This record gives sequence, structure tokens and C-alpha cells, in this order.
Amino acid sequence: MRATVMYGAGDVRIESVPDARLIERTDALLRVTRACICGSDLWPYKTMEPSGSGRRMGHEAIGVVEEVGAEVRNVKAGDLVVMPFAYSDGTCIFCHEHLQTSCIHGGFFGAGQADGAQAEALRVPQADGTLVALRAGEDNALMPSLLTLSDVMGTGHHAAVAAKVAPGRTVAVVGDGAVGLCGVIAAHRLGAEQIVILGRHPDRIALARSFGATDVVSERGEEAVERVRELTDGFGAHSVLECVGLEESTFTSINIARPGGAVGRVGVPQDEKMPASQTAFYNNLTVGGGPAPARAYIEELLPDILEGRIEPGRVLDRTVPLDEVPDGYRAMDEREAIKVMVEP
Amino acid sequence: MRATVMYGAGDVRIESVPDARLIERTDALLRVTRACICGSDLWPYKTMEPSGSGRRMGHEAIGVVEEVGAEVRNVKAGDLVVMPFAYSDGTCIFCHEHLQTSCIHGGFFGAGQADGAQAEALRVPQADGTLVALRAGEDNALMPSLLTLSDVMGTGHHAAVAAKVAPGRTVAVVGDGAVGLCGVIAAHRLGAEQIVILGRHPDRIALARSFGATDVVSERGEEAVERVRELTDGFGAHSVLECVGLEESTFTSINIARPGGAVGRVGVPQDEKMPASQTAFYNNLTVGGGPAPARAYIEELLPDILEGRIEPGRVLDRTVPLDEVPDGYRAMDEREAIKVMVEP
Repeated sequence: MRATVMYGAGDVRIESVPDARLIERTDALLRVTRACICGSDLWPYKTMEPSGSGRRMGHEAIGVVEEVGAEVRNVKAGDLVVMPFAYSDGTCIFCHEHLQTSCIHGGFFGAGQADGAQAEALRVPQADGTLVALRAGEDNALMPSLLTLSDVMGTGHHAAVAAKVAPGRTVAVVGDGAVGLCGVIAAHRLGAEQIVILGRHPDRIALARSFGATDVVSERGEEAVERVRELTDGFGAHSVLECVGLEESTFTSINIARPGGAVGRVGVPQDEKMPASQTAFYNNLTVGGGPAPARAYIEELLPDILEGRIEPGRVLDRTVPLDEVPDGYRAMDEREAIKVMVEP
Repeated sequence: MRATVMYGAGDVRIESVPDARLIERTDALLRVTRACICGSDLWPYKTMEPSGSGRRMGHEAIGVVEEVGAEVRNVKAGDLVVMPFAYSDGTCIFCHEHLQTSCIHGGFFGAGQADGAQAEALRVPQADGTLVALRAGEDNALMPSLLTLSDVMGTGHHAAVAAKVAPGRTVAVVGDGAVGLCGVIAAHRLGAEQIVILGRHPDRIALARSFGATDVVSERGEEAVERVRELTDGFGAHSVLECVGLEESTFTSINIARPGGAVGRVGVPQDEKMPASQTAFYNNLTVGGGPAPARAYIEELLPDILEGRIEPGRVLDRTVPLDEVPDGYRAMDEREAIKVMVEP
């Protein structure tokens, strides 16, 4: 079969690899019908050291179950399923607490622990705890939005939950990438009154506005902080969604939060240390978030997609076949595309 | 009148200063009957650059109101009151949210914004929002415990609240100073099942045990992390109270928290950046806390003191008259005393 392998920064190849197959009795074999390139895939795309063996890429997928191991009960061959970016057994103490990204028997796709989803097929460990069957046809027009349940919509929702978004609260979303845009959807969905998006790309800002953003701040650094304060009675936002992960964006996020407010981080932090720790302290901020337990949110978000109340699939503004995945990376890296969908 | 003035690291003097007096119509004049030396006073005691004018010290007090400004309604001359370490108007948006340390018209005693409490008397701005009248005689044996409502008991409680302590949760308290010890009291009071204290001073550990600590970890660094994990089924503590503020203690706090857990910081962070940011992220920790809104907690904690259910005053293990305050600083700095009470 064919799969995406990254050999170093900027070096993404589509290669023939051994066919995916069941190994454990808890596995499922998934034929991928839709996958994505993720903003987090761009970190290795920018920085990965050259590797002889390469890394299998991709962690978001919708697909059809082809075969299941002897112990799999919840999904069967022929099911159309959504696959969250982390696999999880669904039974451990952390899964019971809805923190599947810390599952004791879990791990992450496309990160050395399991295969990548930018491929024709992949082995899904812990299939019962991981996969969610969709009652939808493969040709459903909602497929892009359903695909975002793998990661980006769940991640935007997680940022909003960690930032304690609630009716009447003012929200700032730092980052206008696909996750930030889904953060706007999530904040709007959770009843935020004012949603300020910090970003500077006209196409993304337009999408943010259509998702519910009420204000746009295109400044950066100190100017962005001043501008958000002006928009929020001088105090800052109750809830800040950090959807980038860089030092500057984290610094900004902490500095635009209102005293007693919350910052929900979902941008993968690129630094060992968090900036503005003293500011966070003196303002009694809560800084939370992390890898989203996307699996935990599927049941909650799915009806809103099926019934058309939210359209996160609009962040997928380009579709490529598997062979063009390398160009998809380039397009996202050069910000030609917000987020690329892959149809293997 | 006499007051404590710090002129630089290790240089604390008792001096004659102009008598405290009312300035604003919202002020009260407080004759101090009990004050404290705070662990946070030791930071300037260790590091303050020499200063010609000096800094008036102290932010915890019980005293008798001598005189009030024309607009003060809630306290009157003769009242015995407790004074939280921050003054606050009691009416602004943040006071209404019980975050008096961010009061729009507020500030901190002994930090350049208002007088210090290690003195015979001081001016209390925003008296109505700040002071709480005690229905107790000046000679009450509970006075040391009541005095801790100024800061250290409220701060320990704040750490526990920020760390989301609740019945059945496992708690770790990093630091065996007066705040850490009050954190143990707070965790016990909020129903924690297991309370691990990280510290190495036998007298403080004994006190922690009598306050409800169930386990003691005297190791540091990686060994401490291992030891706490062993004590908590390998996962770490649900709630971690960071009661020191140094990089190492913060690093430890984050590393001993269970995935999905919470760290409540009340040790004043000595560094601009927070360590272990990526660990906090990957484990979906919540890091919260800051300067405790001690004023907000007085009503809740006061009955427990008056009815003898908690005895935070036991952390005050030495009493000095005003003239011996410099020696009190030395005793705390050399860890001869946990916390020093001052009787001016």
C-alpha cells in the first residue's frame, strides 16, 4: 500500500510500504477514505532532522473498517468510522475521566507509536475505545466537517473548555489557523458574547467572522495586547484560546486575559518554559489545556454537525489525492491553504 | 510612632516615623495589636538592593480601629479587626467576583502602595472593603489563628481551591513553610483523602501530620517525584499546592501532578518563566493560583477558627515585640522559627 513518510524538514514522500494488518486482538484495520494534514505536522516539516527510516505521518482520518481483531466488539467490517488522533482503550481510569489522551494503553497516530493516517490504510490499536461509527454514507456532503472530529474541531472545543468559555463571557482566540477557527466555532457554540480573533490573513478572518467572531485584532505583541484591552473595557478577555504554541503567542495570550480569567492552550508548546509566568500569577489566571481528548467530545459535537449547526469542515479549503500530499504540506506551510484534506 | 523599615538585604530597622493618620475619607487608622513576618518578606530580606529611603514592611495585622474617615460605614473606632494583606474597595467588578487582590482601587500593604503593618499603627485605605470586625476580645487565645486570616491561612486555602481539592482527591503540598502547613489544613478541611507533604524539617513535618498530612516525602528533585508517584498508584496527585515559588519547587509540583490534575500556585514565582510547561501541557494540567484574595475567604474560614475546628495559629511559633522584629527576620531566615508573630 502507499503511505506518507517524512524523512526530514521539507522532505515528504509517498512510498510503497508493507500493507497494514491486524497485530493485536484489539486492533481494527482501517481503509482510509479521508485524512488531513495538521498544523502540528508542520513542526517536523520545518525542523525534523534527516532520518534514514523516516516517520509515517497523519493522525486524522475517516475510513471504512475492513477487518477487526477477535476482541473487538464496538465496530465491525464495513462500518464508516471517525478516528481521533489518539488511540485509547476506553476502559482505563483516565478514559473514564474523559482524558483519553492520557490512556494507560493509549498512544498517538503518526508519532512513532502507531501508523500514520495519510495512507491508504492503517492499523488502529484499541479499536473499541478509539473508533466511533458514523451513521452516514461515505459520500455525505458533511464528510469534511465529520473529519474535523478527528482532531481540529475537538481541539478547538478543548481550548474553549479549558478557557472556561460560557454564556456572556468575552473570548479571545490567538491564532487564525484551522484550530483557532474551530476555537471560534466552539466559543460561539458555548455562548460567548464577544469573540475577538487575533490573526492577519484576510481569508481566515472572513471565515472566523462567519463562524461568530465579533472583533478582529491584526496587531501583534504589545499592540495586540493594547487593542484587546480596548475591546474589553480595559480588562482583557475572560477566556483566551491559545491556538499556536509559540512563545510570543503564549505571552500574548497570558497578557490579554482578564484577572481571574483562563487561558486554554492547545497549540503544542515549542518551548520548555512558559513565558509570562509572573503575569499569570499576579492576575490569578488559570492556564490549562493540552492534547485534546477528541474522542471524549465526539458524542457531544456530532449532532451539531449532522444537524448543520456548525460547519467546521469549512476550514478544509483544499483537497488532494495521496500522491499530492507533499504539495499539500507545502501549500499549508506557505499559507496558501488553511488545512488540506487528503483523499487516498 | 515606631515602624519596621528595610533598607536592604539583611538590614531591617525599627525606627521612629511620622504618626500614621487618615488621608482619604475612606481610610481607617489602625492601632496594630498583632502583626507577622511573612515568608514573602524574606525575599527582599535576601535580595533587596540598598535603599536610602527604605521600605516599610509588613502586611498582616489584627488591630483596633482608632479613627475612621467620613465615608467609612462598616467599621468604627474601637472595633477589633483583621486586615488582609491587600486593601480593596469591596465594590468594584473584581471585588464582586471575590478577587480582591485585583481590586481596581486596591493595592498591597508594605509594598510601596500603603504603609507596613510591622508597626505601632498604620493607615488602612478602603477600610470598608478591607477590614473585617471580629467579635472577639483582644486577649482571646485564638488571636494567633485569627491573625492567619490576614494572609497565611487564606493563602493556603487559595492554593487548595486553585488545585481543586475536593473529597476523595489525593493532594501533595510542596513546601513545609507556614503557607504549606496552612495548605495542609485547607486540604484536610476540604476533604482530601491523602495529603502528602514535601518537606524536610522535623518540627514542621510533625505539625503537618497533626494538621492532617498522611504521608511525608523528604526527598527532592527526581527522587521526590518518584516517591510521590509511588504513594499515588503511580499516577501523581490530583491536586498539588505549590507553596514555595522557586523554579525547582514549581518543576516538582508540575511533575507530581496526575494527568488531568491541577497545580495551585501561591508561592510568589521568582522567575519570569514557568518550568515544565510542556509536561503541564501533555498531561492536561491546570495551573492556577496567585495572590490569595484573603478578604474573600475570611467569612468562610472564621467560624472554623472560632469553633476550634482548625488551628492555623500554631504555625506562629515565636512572638517578638516590635523592637525585636529584626531578630525575627533572622530567625525565620535561618529557619529557627516557622513564622514570627509581632506584638507592637
